[in-house]
Amino acid sequence: MSATEEERLARVALNRLAEPGDPRMAGLVTELGAERVRDLLLAERSLDGVRTDVAARLASLDPAAELERADRVGLRFVVPGDREWPVGLDDLARAGTVGERGGVPLGLWVRGRVRLDELSDAVAVVGSRSSTGYGDTVARDLSAVAARAGWCVVSGAAFGIDQAAHRGALAVDGPTLAVLACGADRAYPAAHRGLLGHVADAGAVVSESAPGCSPMRVRFLARNRLIAAMARGTVVVEAAVRSGALSTATWTERLQRPLMGVPGPVTAAESQGVHERIRSGAAVLVTGGHDVLELLGRPGEHLVEVPRAEPRPRDRLTTRQQQVLDAVPVARPAGADSVARTAGIGVREVYRALSLLEQQGLVRRSPGGWTLDRAARA
Amino acid sequence: MSATEEERLARVALNRLAEPGDPRMAGLVTELGAERVRDLLLAERSLDGVRTDVAARLASLDPAAELERADRVGLRFVVPGDREWPVGLDDLARAGTVGERGGVPLGLWVRGRVRLDELSDAVAVVGSRSSTGYGDTVARDLSAVAARAGWCVVSGAAFGIDQAAHRGALAVDGPTLAVLACGADRAYPAAHRGLLGHVADAGAVVSESAPGCSPMRVRFLARNRLIAAMARGTVVVEAAVRSGALSTATWTERLQRPLMGVPGPVTAAESQGVHERIRSGAAVLVTGGHDVLELLGRPGEHLVEVPRAEPRPRDRLTTRQQQVLDAVPVARPAGADSVARTAGIGVREVYRALSLLEQQGLVRRSPGGWTLDRAARA
Repeated sequence: MSATEEERLARVALNRLAEPGDPRMAGLVTELGAERVRDLLLAERSLDGVRTDVAARLASLDPAAELERADRVGLRFVVPGDREWPVGLDDLARAGTVGERGGVPLGLWVRGRVRLDELSDAVAVVGSRSSTGYGDTVARDLSAVAARAGWCVVSGAAFGIDQAAHRGALAVDGPTLAVLACGADRAYPAAHRGLLGHVADAGAVVSESAPGCSPMRVRFLARNRLIAAMARGTVVVEAAVRSGALSTATWTERLQRPLMGVPGPVTAAESQGVHERIRSGAAVLVTGGHDVLELLGRPGEHLVEVPRAEPRPRDRLTTRQQQVLDAVPVARPAGADSVARTAGIGVREVYRALSLLEQQGLVRRSPGGWTLDRAARA
Repeated sequence: MSATEEERLARVALNRLAEPGDPRMAGLVTELGAERVRDLLLAERSLDGVRTDVAARLASLDPAAELERADRVGLRFVVPGDREWPVGLDDLARAGTVGERGGVPLGLWVRGRVRLDELSDAVAVVGSRSSTGYGDTVARDLSAVAARAGWCVVSGAAFGIDQAAHRGALAVDGPTLAVLACGADRAYPAAHRGLLGHVADAGAVVSESAPGCSPMRVRFLARNRLIAAMARGTVVVEAAVRSGALSTATWTERLQRPLMGVPGPVTAAESQGVHERIRSGAAVLVTGGHDVLELLGRPGEHLVEVPRAEPRPRDRLTTRQQQVLDAVPVARPAGADSVARTAGIGVREVYRALSLLEQQGLVRRSPGGWTLDRAARA
């Protein structure tokens, strides 16, 4: 299933025309579809019969060329109806506005090897740009635990907590996703160019803003709603009372998804915003990745202490099969030869094991190779 | 109003007979009264017609002599019906048992200058004996803020958080109350003999255990229920997962009074017990004294930030009258001459001002002198 080419082109054009998170444009497109909105805007004329500025600007755009240029730098444009469209974003249609931003994005510019629908078990980990060493450590550890359990760590690639969250996931070879306020082809902050490259390798870098766009305050506000909407829940690790991370928290509440907060010393301004949200009952206190998994997982799936755990599917495997399973990556697909090298087992035996594991729903075959499937992450 | 002398003597005797917080004894006395229970027990005989051990032991006691001896070392025995009986303790009749301890105490042995009913606006501040420097600082500051606002700080005089709580109140000349697991004439821990002396000067040292009793594990469990029951709410500052301070938290929940917890670094074991209680929703997160006052005060009485504060009674006073008011102690009464010295104003003018302040409900006259009244603490 995929959106029609006309619809995709109309969305590319309207997305270039409007600011990210323009709630009027989002609402119109959700109601009428992008082609119809584009045609209506193209026909707009002033009282004198002259094309309006909007119509003229829209007519001057060449979305097909834009898609081609983007493709050359490794960017794709994902829209509703595409198989990899993150359906969680659709909830934004009913989440109102915050700071005059809101609505379902017209599309997402994506750079990265992993398909977005493979990153749908995601948790957002956000926080202060001016974090403390304590906050960085907690964000990194928490994200590593979540990523090791197969959760994709979503954040904003900013300094401080954001980068610690991405790095925590990357450190365990886990999936992670960065949502930018500038074009997905750009690096902001510039110092994180390398980090964003790693994120694109292990997961994806996405943006609502068209390629080449600069980061601006209004785009950060719009961006934060996507971080919240692409995750099943949000963890805030350190946020001063007026921290931008709290706008992601607000969006999480609007989306009626779990909001979690990591406490810290009450003497640290960096934790005040988090403490406020916990105190008011908006956020649940979490102390690490296991708390997060317990809150977001299916009931009983991630209990911290299970007196007698249910046997997991992998418990029924032979030791050799388990070795193979352990060598299959969580996010980025690997070929059977690569799995064989990692497992230290011959490729023919590995291929037999992979086929068996596939039947049991433990691994998934995709064009790029093999990844773990849901059952293996339980 | 006061209990009859017979009832008081019966309670002294039964209190010496039973362990603190023996729920059976407490229940019997609450139902039948102490005189009747004493008479029933004195009449107890075995099948052979011999007095039981309990009856023999009870008959051998001399409660009148015990009261006299206690009086000589500055101890009084406060029982239900006495004007200074802390009525909050009566709620223990309906709070069940924890660790086989429970019930309304038969009486309280009290050492200290302040009448217990003057300490009834109380908040318990408890926590780990092996606290961190962070925990000590927070407990001290929080207690100082509460005490400055006229709240009596109740704790257990233990090492760590308890002593920090008492010291915080003492540092601002505020009221504080120590509930001991040994006799109120003893010092446990011995290193806190000096501290307990200061507490007795500024407030009171109380115990359910008879004079001379040693601290024992069962008495600590019984003691913790009194800390919770003598306060309007309890703040836990640092408690490891199995900390004794959490039994005070449990009693606070049983009494359906506000339970508050101060968060800390999630990396510190000392905060784990607190985080658990906040996470489960049993405790509300507080970051300092102002949060505590806001939670415990009458609605709107202690708002941290009031955009436009209601004029307080003291705002209507002249500067001279305010100076006099500022020189009146919160807890321990002072004579007009002492107030005059502190205020640096002549005693005749001070006395006129005090009389006027008394009419406005701002100060209270008692045999020992003057103290602030409720309205002045708002």
